[in-house]
Amino acid sequence: MSEPMRRAAILAVGSEMLTPTRVDTNSLVITDLLNEIGIDVVFKAIVGDDRAELAAQFAHMLDRVDLVVLTGGLGPTEDDLTRDVVAERLGLPLAEDEAITDAIRKRFAQRGWKMPEINRRQAMVPRGATVLANANGTAPGLWIEAGAKGIALFPGPPREMKPMLQRVVADHLRPRAGGARLVRRVLKIAGRSESRVEEITQPVYSVWRTWTTPVETTILAAPGQIELHLSARGSDESILRDTLERAVAEILAVLPHDVFSVDGRSLEEVIGDLLRERGLTIALAESCTGGLATSRLTDVPGSSAYVDQAIVVYSNAAKVARLGVPESLLALHGAVSEPVAQAMAASVREQAHVDVGVGITGIAGPTGGTETKPVGMVCIAVAAAPATTVRTFRFPGNRELVKTFAAFTALDMVRRTILQTPPNGDWLQK
Amino acid sequence: MSEPMRRAAILAVGSEMLTPTRVDTNSLVITDLLNEIGIDVVFKAIVGDDRAELAAQFAHMLDRVDLVVLTGGLGPTEDDLTRDVVAERLGLPLAEDEAITDAIRKRFAQRGWKMPEINRRQAMVPRGATVLANANGTAPGLWIEAGAKGIALFPGPPREMKPMLQRVVADHLRPRAGGARLVRRVLKIAGRSESRVEEITQPVYSVWRTWTTPVETTILAAPGQIELHLSARGSDESILRDTLERAVAEILAVLPHDVFSVDGRSLEEVIGDLLRERGLTIALAESCTGGLATSRLTDVPGSSAYVDQAIVVYSNAAKVARLGVPESLLALHGAVSEPVAQAMAASVREQAHVDVGVGITGIAGPTGGTETKPVGMVCIAVAAAPATTVRTFRFPGNRELVKTFAAFTALDMVRRTILQTPPNGDWLQK
Repeated sequence: MSEPMRRAAILAVGSEMLTPTRVDTNSLVITDLLNEIGIDVVFKAIVGDDRAELAAQFAHMLDRVDLVVLTGGLGPTEDDLTRDVVAERLGLPLAEDEAITDAIRKRFAQRGWKMPEINRRQAMVPRGATVLANANGTAPGLWIEAGAKGIALFPGPPREMKPMLQRVVADHLRPRAGGARLVRRVLKIAGRSESRVEEITQPVYSVWRTWTTPVETTILAAPGQIELHLSARGSDESILRDTLERAVAEILAVLPHDVFSVDGRSLEEVIGDLLRERGLTIALAESCTGGLATSRLTDVPGSSAYVDQAIVVYSNAAKVARLGVPESLLALHGAVSEPVAQAMAASVREQAHVDVGVGITGIAGPTGGTETKPVGMVCIAVAAAPATTVRTFRFPGNRELVKTFAAFTALDMVRRTILQTPPNGDWLQK
Repeated sequence: MSEPMRRAAILAVGSEMLTPTRVDTNSLVITDLLNEIGIDVVFKAIVGDDRAELAAQFAHMLDRVDLVVLTGGLGPTEDDLTRDVVAERLGLPLAEDEAITDAIRKRFAQRGWKMPEINRRQAMVPRGATVLANANGTAPGLWIEAGAKGIALFPGPPREMKPMLQRVVADHLRPRAGGARLVRRVLKIAGRSESRVEEITQPVYSVWRTWTTPVETTILAAPGQIELHLSARGSDESILRDTLERAVAEILAVLPHDVFSVDGRSLEEVIGDLLRERGLTIALAESCTGGLATSRLTDVPGSSAYVDQAIVVYSNAAKVARLGVPESLLALHGAVSEPVAQAMAASVREQAHVDVGVGITGIAGPTGGTETKPVGMVCIAVAAAPATTVRTFRFPGNRELVKTFAAFTALDMVRRTILQTPPNGDWLQK
């Protein structure tokens, strides 16, 4: 068979994914790889370990798409129905593949166990199917070609599924994907709200649809961070990459200070690289963020090279005793104030003998807010040679959101201070 | 119509949910509420803004279930097809509902804007449908009864969808749900791996299926924390609650020290309550967790009442300068050692004048591990009257996982120290 494949559907099998606590995430990984080679996922479904619903949805998919990818339901128990249902629908008899039985038996033997007879079910293969070895579990995957259709069966656990998916893409799908592929770029933006990013970038990206190689745009929002996902589709990869590079440059032109990453790096990775390149060290004094900013910074491997220490001063007494913030300053301006944030940043910088000091003080809520200092108000200072920057923000949302916004924004102020970029931001208090 | 409703399907509409970056989470909320009144979700699907696929999947659902819930695709643009497709399939003519147009017009007017003509589409109602007002957006929802079937159309944004869902459940579904309902309990467990919890609880919960009111069990794993979700279904709520109470007691009997929550509270909330009840205060000295343990503790509103301060000592110099950890101790045992963890806990407790001091030091990786002190090795000490507890753990996974495990386990050691419960755990270094 050699008709190009364009349209796929994904069917996740497992009753646990019909509960209120679990989602199917395998389909995201599958979609990513299929999109890359130019195959669209036109719909997805999730069914339980239920023969009738599984058979009905599989039949529905087979009617409508070129490629059906099924995940889950390949275990050894009576609940695991995917193999049977697919073989029955396609009219393919199942037969035991001794090589698979041997491989499963060996896996058990390695742990000193005897293979339960029930595991033989995992060695049943529909006639003509290609067996996909499983390096990380007992259930093999299957690749079946039925007329012009392709059907892939993968186990549910992601680390078992992924290597098989990659193999099916390389061996069976890429050759039939018609040469069209999809390339993505992700831009990460700090200090801007989703609607403001939309407002600023929409006049730019709306034109991209009319380009010879059109570029699609998606905006994703997290607290403090907005992502712009750009994608282009076509047969010539270098044209796609050049087109996306041009699109990235256009966004950088309208948001010159706010885009902090065009290569997938997180904000803490970007700051880590900036500090490392310049041989700088950093220390933090956190109040309302409770250690979150430092925790984010130290998520980066090797961050011990530039993160020296941090002080979480939750009480006023600790601000005085630990950091030597003058009691008079606290009395005059209150703990949540620019002078206190500045004193915290300067003091931790001096005490730790580092190049960059950060001070964060604010009201995370839900209580503690007043008319003049409402919940969500946060003062952030960054002390560095040659100067200290200090700003007051007003973040939206509940306690956790305010913490997340404040920690992220403090790190972004470190970036802007090092790069001497204006401390812009939609959450700056007017 | 009055046939009981038992089987539902959920259809999420929107091309963005067929990309590699977004999942449908509305269906989790919908499943939770439907399960509560005894309606099963037998399958779910996700389609793009694509008339043919939407119509085909809706028809498939209508054939197979009593209740179809659709979310998304109710906006004002040409891409929003849900209303049209449902009305067409059911053979119901659409007519503009002037009351809806007025409400939308008012919403725009409140912001000083004129309603775009395109928004009239959102006022089109299939004949006989019940309109569900939208307090948080422009698109109204719809409830349609077609023969014995029920069809609900909700907007995609969760805060618009939820109030409508609650209204449909109360007004239209609960009366037809046949009196059966589902009650859940969640137990949270610390210090045990998923497989160990399975091993210990399986002999207990497997018997529950044979009870007059059977109890279903699901195990969910997060780093350091395992959740057991118990559910029972029936018509008499007090019997369900008693049955689940009995099941909870049986789990507590086999895991007496490891279950830390039977009422939904998180570990940081449990510790907060323990500290507050006893009038205790706490301070932390964190190394490899980089502030994460303190950040978790301060996620709880009001935690400033008992969290005094924390020191993140990433460098050895900071451990000496900030905490007075003797250089000889660092030289003799190394930074990652029980004596150093003990010294950190004792020192921060004394310096901060608090009741409980915590010291955490370990190797988060990926580098820095040695044969005797591998990546994932973490020493945790809790200093409190009357005694200091110290333990060495070996956690699995990458840097972020080790940090998460270590922060969670440190908080659990605080709980165990206050309750004088044995510091058990599957990750204890032998």
